[in-house]
Amino acid sequence: MDFGARSGVPTISADEGERLSGRYGPLAQAVRDLIDATIRTEGDDATIAEATAQIRQVTEQLRSGILSESPGLRYVVDGRPLAWGNAVVGLRNPIAPPLSIRHGEPGHCWTDFHLGAAYEGPPNLVHGGVSALVLDHLLGEAASEGLTKPLYTGTITVKYLRGTPLGSLRAEASVYRREGIKTYARGHISDASGVTVEAEGVFILPAWARDGAE
Amino acid sequence: MDFGARSGVPTISADEGERLSGRYGPLAQAVRDLIDATIRTEGDDATIAEATAQIRQVTEQLRSGILSESPGLRYVVDGRPLAWGNAVVGLRNPIAPPLSIRHGEPGHCWTDFHLGAAYEGPPNLVHGGVSALVLDHLLGEAASEGLTKPLYTGTITVKYLRGTPLGSLRAEASVYRREGIKTYARGHISDASGVTVEAEGVFILPAWARDGAE
Repeated sequence: MDFGARSGVPTISADEGERLSGRYGPLAQAVRDLIDATIRTEGDDATIAEATAQIRQVTEQLRSGILSESPGLRYVVDGRPLAWGNAVVGLRNPIAPPLSIRHGEPGHCWTDFHLGAAYEGPPNLVHGGVSALVLDHLLGEAASEGLTKPLYTGTITVKYLRGTPLGSLRAEASVYRREGIKTYARGHISDASGVTVEAEGVFILPAWARDGAE
Repeated sequence: MDFGARSGVPTISADEGERLSGRYGPLAQAVRDLIDATIRTEGDDATIAEATAQIRQVTEQLRSGILSESPGLRYVVDGRPLAWGNAVVGLRNPIAPPLSIRHGEPGHCWTDFHLGAAYEGPPNLVHGGVSALVLDHLLGEAASEGLTKPLYTGTITVKYLRGTPLGSLRAEASVYRREGIKTYARGHISDASGVTVEAEGVFILPAWARDGAE
């Protein structure tokens, strides 16, 4: 299925995609570093007030020329959407770690990633909801074979075996059943000592895309 | 239970809490606005390169004097932890919307909030995992009566009824059963047209806190 043609998202060349990610990727990464410093700084009133003023100034500069409410799935390259605004994998979204997801056999994917202070819940642990966010996305990637199918999460269950430490982590997900418009996937997050969180979910092809359902 | 005394988190006065939130709150809010502009800007190479350089400079300034790996539950005011680094409610965490949670009857809480471009999954919709993040946190707040009890999520199930639009939303959660070390809660997210996502979960008192369990 050609996701671009079906969804109306514009297709750009791989070269143009490279050019735009070279322009906007470093900006988002700089903001990720700023987020971390914002949480951890212990600067005094004057330092913090000056930083706040400078950030507001940069924001004003960036706001000139904004055209869209949100970038969303703005481009398709080689039949795969560039989800640059996505909260989990978006190259242009500073909130996204961003996860870089690798696909193996059809319906299987994994990612090695790092979560810092911004993703904290209990002291030094990943927020339980952040683990759910990562697993929802990864199971969805497995089910949709790299977002090339427009599937939505139906239900997801997340089971916490123990606290997930901030730092280097891995997540994996696999499809284990397909049945009409439903695709079932499961996965987990692990640290160096093993699995910390497990999830399973069912993903559903939306009505508008069902004419092409197998 | 005095959370501060039990957890070893330092207690500060309400005045000191006000003073520090007045220092660091506006900084985090300025970074939230920058995140939104970073995602939505369509500036050219020169504009983006200049903004990137300025942001790196501010980050360097903020990094001077950083003491802790992450702020976590840094202070307790009036027996309630100030979770300033928290990924969902943290005053100092630019990734957090942040949710401002109101508590009614014991075991019931709600929040009115706004999610912009940074929380997007499918075009113009909240990322399903972000809904899970919000509900995990809110159910946990209900179960722990405003984080005054150190409960951890055991299992949470999130059911998506339809897409949740970016914009103004409400979330609610209630405890419906307590049984030894387990507390059961459920909740939902709604937009102006009704409920979009439901969740239920079980929250567990960790072993280190069980000597005080009822």
